[in-house]
Amino acid sequence: MLQSAAKVLSFASATSVSRGIAAGIRHYCKNTPTKLRVSQALSGAELGSNIKVQGWVRSVRAQKANVFLHVNDGSSLQSLQVVASSELSDPLLTFGSAVEVTGILKKSPHQKQPVELDAKQINVVGECNPSDMALSIFANFLISGAEQMLLDNGFVEINTPIITSNDCEGAGELFQVEPSGPDYADGENFFSVPAYLTVSGQLHLEVVSGAFSKVYTFGPTFRAENSQSRRHLAEFYMVEAEISFTQSLEDLTKVMEDMFRFATEHVLAHCVEDVDLFHKHVTPGHREYLVSFLRITYREAIDILRRSSERFAFPTDWGCDLKTEHEKYLVKHCGNIPVFVTDYPYDLKPFYARDNQDHPERTAAAVDLLVPGVGELCGGSLREERLNLLSARLEEAGLEDVYSWYLDLRRFGSVPHGGFGLGFERYLQCILGVDNIKDVVPFPRFSHSCLL
Amino acid sequence: MLQSAAKVLSFASATSVSRGIAAGIRHYCKNTPTKLRVSQALSGAELGSNIKVQGWVRSVRAQKANVFLHVNDGSSLQSLQVVASSELSDPLLTFGSAVEVTGILKKSPHQKQPVELDAKQINVVGECNPSDMALSIFANFLISGAEQMLLDNGFVEINTPIITSNDCEGAGELFQVEPSGPDYADGENFFSVPAYLTVSGQLHLEVVSGAFSKVYTFGPTFRAENSQSRRHLAEFYMVEAEISFTQSLEDLTKVMEDMFRFATEHVLAHCVEDVDLFHKHVTPGHREYLVSFLRITYREAIDILRRSSERFAFPTDWGCDLKTEHEKYLVKHCGNIPVFVTDYPYDLKPFYARDNQDHPERTAAAVDLLVPGVGELCGGSLREERLNLLSARLEEAGLEDVYSWYLDLRRFGSVPHGGFGLGFERYLQCILGVDNIKDVVPFPRFSHSCLL
Repeated sequence: MLQSAAKVLSFASATSVSRGIAAGIRHYCKNTPTKLRVSQALSGAELGSNIKVQGWVRSVRAQKANVFLHVNDGSSLQSLQVVASSELSDPLLTFGSAVEVTGILKKSPHQKQPVELDAKQINVVGECNPSDMALSIFANFLISGAEQMLLDNGFVEINTPIITSNDCEGAGELFQVEPSGPDYADGENFFSVPAYLTVSGQLHLEVVSGAFSKVYTFGPTFRAENSQSRRHLAEFYMVEAEISFTQSLEDLTKVMEDMFRFATEHVLAHCVEDVDLFHKHVTPGHREYLVSFLRITYREAIDILRRSSERFAFPTDWGCDLKTEHEKYLVKHCGNIPVFVTDYPYDLKPFYARDNQDHPERTAAAVDLLVPGVGELCGGSLREERLNLLSARLEEAGLEDVYSWYLDLRRFGSVPHGGFGLGFERYLQCILGVDNIKDVVPFPRFSHSCLL
Repeated sequence: MLQSAAKVLSFASATSVSRGIAAGIRHYCKNTPTKLRVSQALSGAELGSNIKVQGWVRSVRAQKANVFLHVNDGSSLQSLQVVASSELSDPLLTFGSAVEVTGILKKSPHQKQPVELDAKQINVVGECNPSDMALSIFANFLISGAEQMLLDNGFVEINTPIITSNDCEGAGELFQVEPSGPDYADGENFFSVPAYLTVSGQLHLEVVSGAFSKVYTFGPTFRAENSQSRRHLAEFYMVEAEISFTQSLEDLTKVMEDMFRFATEHVLAHCVEDVDLFHKHVTPGHREYLVSFLRITYREAIDILRRSSERFAFPTDWGCDLKTEHEKYLVKHCGNIPVFVTDYPYDLKPFYARDNQDHPERTAAAVDLLVPGVGELCGGSLREERLNLLSARLEEAGLEDVYSWYLDLRRFGSVPHGGFGLGFERYLQCILGVDNIKDVVPFPRFSHSCLL
């Protein structure tokens, strides 16, 4: 009896407890705000709900009865309008301060925005005294379109090393790397050999292309150029691809064109607002870049430049390198669309470019892609896969010992192959119409400047 | 009349021309082999078709009437068996040579492989004399699972700079960067200030997390450690994430755990064969890592170590740093699953770790993730967002001038935030069961070694 009484009691209390818990949960669910990002709130899906938004104040406007705030958390270019009664106002509620706002998401009576947040509570999490403020932050989205296209086409991503013992083309624009600090002051190299920051992942890609056929890398590259130009950074990103069994420059320019198109369509599809914002401040019509690509030879490019009435600072004889002024002129001349220039003089190109053996001019199977506003965006070539020709050229340059491992690649299962590199910041410049390359990266590095 | 006769003639000839073209196309389609990758050929979808495969010879076996080859192009771990009559044999057809094989894809009579290529033509593209061969190439796939999880959860990818003027935590293990070559021998810094290779993108991520709320970077980091250990490289990759409005270590370990799970499931789903190959040579059962994560405090970790009968080389008193031997013991003790260790002594952690203000012990809101086979895989913390506390600690360390910009982040819209970094090569070691970190990257860099 005692036992069953206890059971009844316990059952009753358990029921009331569970009732209490259920009521509590209902109460909790009704009153606990759903945490939303600003972009989610703007979508209007949670209209009528109790929500919480966390972000930074972009503007404050006080009226008699109400305070209006714009709050942004970086998830959208548009900010969320917050309406609060004056009682919720706070002297700490300033431009740049960090806030948590809780309230009901409502349809806005104004046409400018679809929704607004009727604030019940505003919590200033981080103060921001605007009179002291001196920070300005550039930030960028890096676009996955180019990588998507490569992965869809069977390319394997390889991280080529940043530190390398190759000094690549013997160019004098390398950064050298050694440990800092007193432990390493004895003059011995940390890596036993002089080591540099990579200027290109190409040679390493050539190694692994002999195992995976189609490979690419997307990573930082470095040039110690003492330049303050609008097209150069000391640290910049390149997409580089290398393709085994490539027979002609057409095989290569096909991949370059596909990548450019796919990536550009990807950006325009996913970042409409960002692109529109930039296009308000620059020439519109960037979409037309997708329409067509032109292909001319270096010989034709020289003919165009020589026929032009333009006065160039640099010479335009056959055998001269194309400078930025020439590249920009060629793009304009061709109707302001991307232009492939192929078959450069053999002597202008590095040792790995494939000899076209077209005497007497002698050109190499190399190609540059020139684009509006920027000039050179990509450079590529078929690689000299014939052991005897490569070996002779390296010997001529006195590089046969340093590159003996590279010659070995031609000894053991060599195949016709080629590849190219695309400068990523220049690509962003081209798509967004940004004049200065330093404006498309958050922390630009160039001579005399390395902030933070 | 003449006109209509001409029309009839032209119509007749046009018809015969178009007939000829159609026949030509049929002939062409029937006889032009479809170019397939080895993985596509193995799928069997093109059974009975005339196909062409390009790749490298993995084995050659000659019998009386036939030659058997295994050809691989890196698209699959499995090679394609090629059967050719002895007449197609060639002394240049050796291990490692590059070939193009054309023929009919047939069902294989042997159980070992589903299909085989009945060769009509074999073309040796690149010779490979096996007696000279000395090359061995390590290559790796880098996995996109971790990034996928972060992007799906609203994180924005930021490329933090590789070259930086921060010497971060004042650690002495930095690589310094200056141009090589005679132009820069005057002792002036290229960037006007001493510049280093980054040891972590954290501080830069903290800057941009104030605009995008949730950010991450996946990039190379560097330590000039004179170490030959199986867990250290001079150049390695980290996934680092930073999250605004993070209130507790639980918020952080949730993201770490989700990322580890998602990435691991991603690898196991997409690279079954690769993982199986590795598991043949190591302990199986790696899938169990996904089952559960344990969480202990540093205090509990010290208690476990002190109660153990194991003899450790390093001390295990409260306040001592956990060494690899301790980390590996803790993981084993906890059942060989990933273990979060939280709330380390304040004095062990860098200036940015948040003070738990739990006197007298005084710990910081920092967390490490230890995993089987490796030990420390991730390190993270809440960041000290309170201006007065951070400012006092920097002053104590004499760093208040160097980090004045970092203090500014606490002045202008500061929010509670936190983040973590995951060592990518160690993560690969853990998943694949590879003992030495140098074996999971194609071009490992460590003291006294920088090949190619």
